[in-house]
Formats: sequence, structure tokens, C-alpha cells
Amino acid sequence: MPIDFRSDTVTKPTEEMKRAMLEAEVGDDVYGEDPTVNRLEKLAAEILGKEAALFVTSGTQGNQLAVLTHCVNGDEVIMEADSHIFYSEGGAVAALAGVQTRTINGERGVITPEAIARAVRSRNIHFPRTRLLCMENTHNRAGGAVISPEQMKAAYEAAHSRGVAVHLDGARLFNAAVALKREISDFTRYADTVQVCLSKGLSAPIGSVLAGSRDFIEEARWWRKKLGGGMRQAGYIAAPGILALTEMVPRLEEDHHRAKRLAEGLRQLSLTVEPVETNIVLVHTERAGMNAVQFLEQLAERGVLAVDFDESLVRFTTHRHITDQDIQAALTAVEAILPA
Amino acid sequence: MPIDFRSDTVTKPTEEMKRAMLEAEVGDDVYGEDPTVNRLEKLAAEILGKEAALFVTSGTQGNQLAVLTHCVNGDEVIMEADSHIFYSEGGAVAALAGVQTRTINGERGVITPEAIARAVRSRNIHFPRTRLLCMENTHNRAGGAVISPEQMKAAYEAAHSRGVAVHLDGARLFNAAVALKREISDFTRYADTVQVCLSKGLSAPIGSVLAGSRDFIEEARWWRKKLGGGMRQAGYIAAPGILALTEMVPRLEEDHHRAKRLAEGLRQLSLTVEPVETNIVLVHTERAGMNAVQFLEQLAERGVLAVDFDESLVRFTTHRHITDQDIQAALTAVEAILPA
Amino acid sequence: MPIDFRSDTVTKPTEEMKRAMLEAEVGDDVYGEDPTVNRLEKLAAEILGKEAALFVTSGTQGNQLAVLTHCVNGDEVIMEADSHIFYSEGGAVAALAGVQTRTINGERGVITPEAIARAVRSRNIHFPRTRLLCMENTHNRAGGAVISPEQMKAAYEAAHSRGVAVHLDGARLFNAAVALKREISDFTRYADTVQVCLSKGLSAPIGSVLAGSRDFIEEARWWRKKLGGGMRQAGYIAAPGILALTEMVPRLEEDHHRAKRLAEGLRQLSLTVEPVETNIVLVHTERAGMNAVQFLEQLAERGVLAVDFDESLVRFTTHRHITDQDIQAALTAVEAILPA
Amino acid sequence: MPIDFRSDTVTKPTEEMKRAMLEAEVGDDVYGEDPTVNRLEKLAAEILGKEAALFVTSGTQGNQLAVLTHCVNGDEVIMEADSHIFYSEGGAVAALAGVQTRTINGERGVITPEAIARAVRSRNIHFPRTRLLCMENTHNRAGGAVISPEQMKAAYEAAHSRGVAVHLDGARLFNAAVALKREISDFTRYADTVQVCLSKGLSAPIGSVLAGSRDFIEEARWWRKKLGGGMRQAGYIAAPGILALTEMVPRLEEDHHRAKRLAEGLRQLSLTVEPVETNIVLVHTERAGMNAVQFLEQLAERGVLAVDFDESLVRFTTHRHITDQDIQAALTAVEAILPA
Repeated sequence: MPIDFRSDTVTKPTEEMKRAMLEAEVGDDVYGEDPTVNRLEKLAAEILGKEAALFVTSGTQGNQLAVLTHCVNGDEVIMEADSHIFYSEGGAVAALAGVQTRTINGERGVITPEAIARAVRSRNIHFPRTRLLCMENTHNRAGGAVISPEQMKAAYEAAHSRGVAVHLDGARLFNAAVALKREISDFTRYADTVQVCLSKGLSAPIGSVLAGSRDFIEEARWWRKKLGGGMRQAGYIAAPGILALTEMVPRLEEDHHRAKRLAEGLRQLSLTVEPVETNIVLVHTERAGMNAVQFLEQLAERGVLAVDFDESLVRFTTHRHITDQDIQAALTAVEAILPA
Repeated sequence: MPIDFRSDTVTKPTEEMKRAMLEAEVGDDVYGEDPTVNRLEKLAAEILGKEAALFVTSGTQGNQLAVLTHCVNGDEVIMEADSHIFYSEGGAVAALAGVQTRTINGERGVITPEAIARAVRSRNIHFPRTRLLCMENTHNRAGGAVISPEQMKAAYEAAHSRGVAVHLDGARLFNAAVALKREISDFTRYADTVQVCLSKGLSAPIGSVLAGSRDFIEEARWWRKKLGGGMRQAGYIAAPGILALTEMVPRLEEDHHRAKRLAEGLRQLSLTVEPVETNIVLVHTERAGMNAVQFLEQLAERGVLAVDFDESLVRFTTHRHITDQDIQAALTAVEAILPA
Repeated sequence: MPIDFRSDTVTKPTEEMKRAMLEAEVGDDVYGEDPTVNRLEKLAAEILGKEAALFVTSGTQGNQLAVLTHCVNGDEVIMEADSHIFYSEGGAVAALAGVQTRTINGERGVITPEAIARAVRSRNIHFPRTRLLCMENTHNRAGGAVISPEQMKAAYEAAHSRGVAVHLDGARLFNAAVALKREISDFTRYADTVQVCLSKGLSAPIGSVLAGSRDFIEEARWWRKKLGGGMRQAGYIAAPGILALTEMVPRLEEDHHRAKRLAEGLRQLSLTVEPVETNIVLVHTERAGMNAVQFLEQLAERGVLAVDFDESLVRFTTHRHITDQDIQAALTAVEAILPA
Repeated sequence: MPIDFRSDTVTKPTEEMKRAMLEAEVGDDVYGEDPTVNRLEKLAAEILGKEAALFVTSGTQGNQLAVLTHCVNGDEVIMEADSHIFYSEGGAVAALAGVQTRTINGERGVITPEAIARAVRSRNIHFPRTRLLCMENTHNRAGGAVISPEQMKAAYEAAHSRGVAVHLDGARLFNAAVALKREISDFTRYADTVQVCLSKGLSAPIGSVLAGSRDFIEEARWWRKKLGGGMRQAGYIAAPGILALTEMVPRLEEDHHRAKRLAEGLRQLSLTVEPVETNIVLVHTERAGMNAVQFLEQLAERGVLAVDFDESLVRFTTHRHITDQDIQAALTAVEAILPA
């Protein structure tokens, strides 16, 4: 069994989650009659400080529903240039919603209120209407960088004062909250809608939640049906999601701790490593005399898996199945492949 | 607990399915590493006589992926005017794929080769390109009507000889096969791609399968990611799907038998009932002196649930949780609400 | 020079129109500064009884702007199954607007209020929202059939009472008004928006007008820009459009008269001809022992041009360049190709 | 009459153009029978070094047809972040084509081969397919900057070697050719398709041309029909377009000369002015102690019109109606509004 740093999505459910799955009370969720799904949605709405929530099969689905529900075809949405919703969702914003992406280069995932102000379109027949700002927290391609509630507030106000709504891609928002020791609601109050993943560090097998106002979620439910995201006895996968939210958040701190240890170790091997704030470690492979693909191949031969982010950038992600010993083993493997 | 004839989607998994769920070996399916999902997809491809298959969260998702993968924006697709993909998928064919729906009024769900020939567009700058024909078997709104392999062949040849591909919405295809005592492949050979539901009469909690050529399914997998249908440890819901395919098909005959008994009973109460071929019973409410909504409300008060199809048409669906006794109870309830 | 019955779109401008073109005062219409365009739009709005109007390059563009402006992606629009907007605009309703077409088979272009009532969707998560009803008057593929103001009223009320807006494709609306000797506003009062063509029987070289409320037209102007329909010194083509509206309407009666003479002559040759109400004559070719393409080829050899509508249906259209003599010559040509 | 520097689109046709309009031989271009349109398309194809060309109503329509024809929904297209097709076409790339825009910040409109290489997507299920690179030459928002054939070649090769097609938005390509004293084909050989405007400095009243391979243009013609860009007797506006291509190109040099004089004069007034290469002058208003809107309002009071590009950036465009005297008058007006 390799040591798998590729993503925190590889985490498997806990024994308690599997028991919850087996014992879940279920119904037909398309009719709104699955009590376990209803319980998850109510719980998530409370935690996220919103009126209502919707269980969806993935973070991508939650984000795309947000765009489809906030916007109409012909609108424009502002987002950071390396954000997941732009970079890693297959161009769905344009393909499904007919909405143009206006990207801004951020600094460790943060886009400034000034940049937002510049990007919001004035009223001119040549321009699309700016309808939405998307933020991502923690920001994956910025190396798990945390956007503070204060930074979120500034962006939110820059958008709202110009009539632009705000969606938060909080796939790893719990990591941000744990890292800053802040409440989840400290972040979500600066977004009209928010999506959080249950299947990453929180270890549920499947699913995310999209939260917002009651009207918004009702409309999103319609779009979910069009995407084929309406499920029947979905309680079986919602049940572990409830435990993800109630039991698993504090343990993210361990992942962060191990990520920092990994980063330190890599730096001691003279590699350039991006600052680590949560459970993601970005390491540049140039000093190893290899490109990212070569680096990954050699590590894989030694039983260590990670992913490439660009030609010479590799991402390691820590999660529940990565132990202290695994960190040590990974460092040993990296050392072994470095040129003498 | 009411007797629930609303849909066969309300079926809950068997105890064996729940055990399979608990014991499922899983992995991250976005990386293609969930062995249970892989096993389900391989099994489904074999049963459906196609090279490859893809696990999806719903029949709607399978159908929409078929349209998105067969077509490009600006194309036209032919389908029966009452088909699920046109009538009950939220306009997704246009909304997501940018494809125009060309509907044909069928006879109990069947559209003739002549009608198909007329509907395929000639090459003319005023016309979209006809790219796809969708069939539905059994046909839901035609009352669970079965399209015979011979009728499918005729339609398939009318389409293929004009360069038009064929997709089969086989949400209840196993019901058709059981009703005619034919092999599944007798039907699927007359379609390039096929979608079958695991969560209806076959009783799996969640999911459908889309099958086709290897290249097609690879492309569909990309579109599934855009729809947010890529899941992580999806093996937990694929496991009962395997049992749905291997264990549950023969029992559909019981549902058909009970549907016929229900229809007979309703006719004896002087109600007009559409011919019953599988597990769906359509009854006209005019003779009851009520519209469909009133009819359903009164039945509901007596603990019997069904759904309305139009102003004076009600659908009853039989499934694993409907017993002989339930049929009798339902008839008693109907009798009670009929005018003296 | 062949006698060209293919369409009234082949008409060339009058000498007066050409003079108007040369003398047109122009400006940059993207800035709203072309006085001739502004004059045309004001005039058209008045004639059509609407607050505002927009000059567009074609009837298709006017219709598509109506759909794009009335609807958002994911909606559904009701239209007759043989209407131009469904049949002959390249599937643009779905391709550009992401809107699903719900077609109803009409009777000589007329769809009944009952059919509209059935087609409007109820509120159900499986359904798109019905946003718009499109009518076509005169109805091209129904053979230039006229929809009376009373029939329009019935359809309009069926739609409006259910919250559905109405667009009128009036590409040949002036023919309808002339045929029934009614005011244009008798028709347009039963539509929220209307498109009329200047380039058909009215003989302007290019263009149509879309009319509606001030807000609607402002929004349509934005969509026109996206379609690339914003033009610069458009006054040169708007100038003959003004004459089309002010000078050319009464002469449509001549076209209708000649169409009727043509139809009578064809019937005397024992051909089956659809009822003629305006300037379109549909003739079935079966009695000629040929299909439509053969019929057209043989006529073309004798210097007479028309178009095929389906395998055995041919359309002749009368217009300003068709004289009494041409009608006679056409009948002689048809007689010559009929089997002895 | 104000001195109008807002755009070269405000130019009116020459007397020769108006005569050509009046004398144009026309036909129905939807049937391909307008001899003047056909002549323009043949001529444009030759000049642009392509097999075929298509007359369209605007540069936006030409660009959008290029995207619609090169791409299918779900693709991604690379373009400079300030390019017209991204910035000023209403988000149509996403709205009409369902294609995601991948923007790169250029240097005076130029994007490097390295940046293109980084932007082309690898094959990964999370990514859209990169189908097209769009270049703009001259680049409007970069101040009429010229991209040299050598720079175009580098970009073209970076794209083509990765299977990505290239479209050139050459709305003002003739300005580039004149500025560098190079042949048009020196530029167009590094693009698969190219759009040039006839209605800007070349003074035709309406229209642009899209050129490419025969197959491409045939397909683009279908998409033009969907956009409602198919016109009838379009020869009337194509006729001046022919003169635009054959007679008007050399005179662009005068516009460039005057733009340089204007820039020098503005610099002598201590204003910061971007380098001038063609007929566009970008001036920063900060030194005038005003924002762009105030600057423009004060100039307008003195009879000089220009447009704002951002909060403190103003564009002046020279064209056929701007004389040496107008340049002097504009400088006098600017001087008058500067703070003492």
C-alpha cells in the first residue's frame, strides 16, 4: 500500500460512519422524504449560518449550482485566476450556465477590494453584467492558503456595494476555521452562499453541501434536478456526512501539523516549499533537478504518491490516513531521489 | 404507513444490499480506483452488451450525459413527445447542451420509422443538424408500455441509415425484458447507448448506469465531471447496484402481475384503465366524478398514495413493497371514494 | 430571367427606396445616433402599438432576440410545431438561449387556448418554467394562413392568465392585416412583443423590426450587441425600411390576388392546392406523378422557380416582381410538365 | 458639429461609396445570389490569403462566428485579458458558445509563446479542452498597439504545435499593416481565420469580413443564420465594402500621422500619453487633476469628443473626418481645461 498524499479525497469513512450508513433511516429524497438527508441539510444550514442547505454529490456540483442559481446566461462572474471553479471544473461555468469568467490574479488566493472594484462592469452595452464574486477558502492552488474573515469582509463589501452577490467555495473551509481558530460563521457571514465538502479531510465517502437563503436553495434544487443530482435513498450517504460535520472537524488540526512537519523536512532537504497554512504542501522540484512528472514517478517507485500542479510544482495533501510515520517515510523517499 | 404507489423509486434496499454496502471495498472513483464501482461498470457493460459503462447518480444524469456526449450545441435530437428526457428533465437538453428537442407524438411510446424519416433534417442552412434519436423503454407516460425489439429495430434503422445515432432511456428496460421474456441485449443492440436505472424496481438506493462504446463512455466521464457527478468512495452505493443487476431482475414479474390485478380491479369498479404491460397502471378519473388531484387527495386520506399525470389521469406503480394485500386494500379504498 | 416564386424575400427595392438610401442622414447607431434608424424605430413602434422598437438584420434575429430577452436559460417556450422559429431558425432557441421548445401541432397555424393551457407547465421540480408563447402570423408553413385577431386574443389570454408572455413572429403580419382588412394593432395588442419583416413583400432590401415595451427593447438591444447585430451607419438600410412601412403595405393585396389566381389555375390542372389566404400557394405534387424535387427541377427547366416544403409539397410565393403574365406563364409551365 | 475622436466607426462613406451603393447589382444573399456580396467575399478572401470569406454585420459577429465555428460547448479559448472579444463583446463567448475564456495579461497586446504554452490545458478530466487562441491586431485597449508578424508567428506556433487553432481579430489589421509597411498576408498567414472591419478607418457604413478555409466558412455561414446575420439584398452595403478594401487602405497612414501629432501635443501639455503606433491615442488624466469622466465632460463642452477606457484613461481615435486643424483645435481645448 503506497502512502497516498494525492488528496484528502482518498479518505475512507470511519467505522462509526459505516455504522451510521447501515442504520440510516431513508426515504425518497426527490420527494423530500429522506429524514437523514433532511437532518444533514438542517444541520449544515445551522453550522454555516444560512437559512437552508442542499446535499449535493460533489464540490463541483455545489459550485456550479451556485453559479446557475445566482446568474442567468450572459452574465459575468469574478473569481481568482487559479480558483477551482475556474481552473478545475471543466469550463462548466460557461458550458452549463453560459456565464463568462472574469479572472483576477490573487496573492495567495486573496483578491483585493480594489481589484474587485475594477473588475465589476459599468453599465455599457458592450459589457456583460457582473452578477457574482466567487471566493475559495482555503485556496487549493495557492497551497491551502487561508483567507481571513477580515480579507473576506473586504472582498464581500467591495462586491455587495456594487450589487454583486458572493459565493464561497469552502471545499476546505473547515481547514481555514481550524487554522485560524475561528468560527465557521466568521467566514460564512461574508458570503451569500457557501459550499463545503464532506468528503475531503472530514472523511465522508461522498458529498458536499450548498447553503444559502431559503429561496436560493429552493431554486438550486431545481437546477440540481436538471444536472441529474436528484437522488433517491440518499440518506445512506448523508448519514456519514452528518458525522463529518459533528465529529471530524477538530481532527483537521493533526493534518495541518503533519503538513508543517513535511514542509520543514522538505526544506531541510534544500527544496523550495511554499508556506504551509493548512493541510497542503506545495514543493518546487527544480532543486531536485527534475520536473514534476519525473519527481512523482520516482517517488511512486518508492511507494509515495502526490500530484503535479504544474511543470515543476508538486502538491502533497495530508489527511486522516497519513500518520507521523508516513511523513517520515515520505521524507526518506524524497531524500533518496534527490541528486547526490 | 400509507401504501405507496407513487413510484418504484421509493423502494428501499434489501438486507443483502445493505450488507453489501457495509462490506464494499472502496477507493477514489474520480481517480478510477474504486473497485466496487469498476466491478459494477464492467458488469453493466456486459449485461447491456456494450464495451463500457459509467455509474451515474440518476437516470436524468445518464440521459443528459448521453445528449451532451452524442451532440454539440446547435444540434437537434428527436424524441417522443411524452418521453421523460423531454417532459420531465427540466428542459436540460436545451439548458445544458444547447440542443433543440424535436418531438414526435408516439402511439403508446412508439414512434414509427416513417415519422423518424420525416423528422430527420435535410441539409439546409435554415435547419439544425439531426444528431440523435432517443427512445424510452418501457415508456413511463405511455403507461409502462413496452417497445418490442422489432419496433426498436425499425426505429434504429430509420435513424442509422440517415446518420443519426440512437440513445435508449432504459430507466425501466428490465421491466420490458421481463414482460416480453426477451434478453436485455435483444433491446440494447438497437441503441448506440443505453441508460438503465438501478434504483427503481431493482431496489438499489441510488444510481443508474450509462453504457456505450469505450470512447463514448470516456467522453461522457468528462461531462459527468462538469455536472459534478464525479464521486469519491462511490463503491458504497455501487455495491447494492451490483445486486440490483444480478439478483433483482426476475422479481419484476411479480410487480407486473400485481399491476394487472390492480387494473382489473379498477375496471371492475367501472373506471377506464389504460392497458397494462408492466408495473404501471394509468387510470382515468372522469368516471369517478373527480379530477386527478381530488382523486388523489381522497385516496391519501385512506392511506393510499399515487401521482397525477394530467388533469384526470392518475398513475399507480407497483414495486417490491407492494403486496397482494396492498392491491386489495387499494381497491377497497378506491371503491370507497367512488360516487354511489 | 426565370420567374422567381421562391420567396418574397427576393424583392428588390423600388427606385424611391434607392433614392432614400442615397439621401439618408446617418450616424453611428451603436451610439444611438443614426437619425434615420431612430426615425424608423419610432415609426415602427407607433404602427405596431408598442412603446419602442429595434431595427435588426433579419426576422430570425428579431425572433431570437425576443426569446433571449423574454427568457432565461432553463425556461421553456411554446410554439406551433411548424413555426419558423422552431422549424427554420437552425435550432437557435436552444443553441443561443438554452431554452426548450415545446411544440404544439396547430390547425392551419392556429393553436387553441386548450392546447396552450395543457402545455403550460405546472410548478414541479421535474419541469422547466413556461415563460413564453410564440405565434406566427401569417403562418408560413401553413401556407400563409391568417390567424384572426379573435384567435390571437384567445391564445393570448390562455397564456397571460397563466403568467406566460406572448411574442408574435409577424414576418408577414402586414399580409394578415391586408387579407382581413384589419388594423395592424388589432393583432399586435395580443402580443407583448412583435417582429415584422421589411424585406419580404414590403420590398426593403434588408431588415426587420422588433417592438415591445421600452424596458424590453433596451434589454433586447444588449442581446443584439452580443449577436453582433449592432451596426454603424445603418441608416442606409433603415431608409428604405421607412418606405416599406409607409408606402408598400396596400400593394400586398395584389400579391394575394395573384396567389389566388395561381391556385385556381393549378386546381384546374387537377392539382391539390391548399387554401390560399395571402401570398403563399402550397401545391401537392402527387397528382403530377412526381415528388417535390422532380417537380421543381422540371419547372426550373421552363424558367419557373419555387421551393419544396416537404417530399411532395411545393411553395409558390407571389410578390412585387410577379406579374399577371408571370402567373399565366407559370401555369403554362406546370401544365407542360404534367403527365399526359 | 463637435470634433469626434470617439471612434473611427463614426466615419461616413465617401461619395464614391454612396454611388457604388446606388449602382450595386443585388440578389438574395441567403440563397448566395447577391453578386456584389459574392464579389466582396471573393476579394476579401484573396486579400486575406484565405480560401473563402463571409460578409457579416460587425466585428463582434465575425469574432463570435469564429468562436462558434472553431469550438464546441465545453471548450476553452485563450485570449489577451484586455482583448475586445473578451472585454467588449458582452460575454458572448460564454453566452452563445458555452466556451470558457482563459485570459492572459499581455504586454501591449502581445502574449508570449511561453504564456500560451502554460495556458494550453493538458489532458485531464478536470479541464476543458483548449481549442482556440484569439489574437487582436492592432490591439484596441493596448492603445492601437501593433503585433508584428514575428510576434504573431511565435504565438501561432506555440498554439499550433499543441493542436490549438488561431483566430485573428483584425478589426484594425489594415492599420497594423500600414504602420509596419508590411503585407496583410504577412499577418494573416499566422492565423487560421481572420476578421477585418470595413466600417472603421476604411469608412464603409456597415460590416466586417470573416475569412478562413472553405469548410470553415461554410460552417460559419450556418452559425450566421442562427444569429440572424443572414441578409437579403446585402449588396447595397457590400458595395462600399469593396471600395473600403480597394481604395481606402493607404489613407490610414494619415490617421496614424495625426494621432502622433495629437500625442506629441498632449505630451507638451505635460500629460502622460501611451506610445502611439497607429490611430489610437491613450492619455492618462491624472496630471489634469481629473478623472476620465470629468476630463471628457469638460472637453465636450468645448466641442471635442473622446471616450473613457478606465477611471483615468481616455482614448482619442483619429479617422478620415479628423483634419490637421481638428488636431490643433483638440489640443487647444485640452489646454483650456488643464489646471493653471
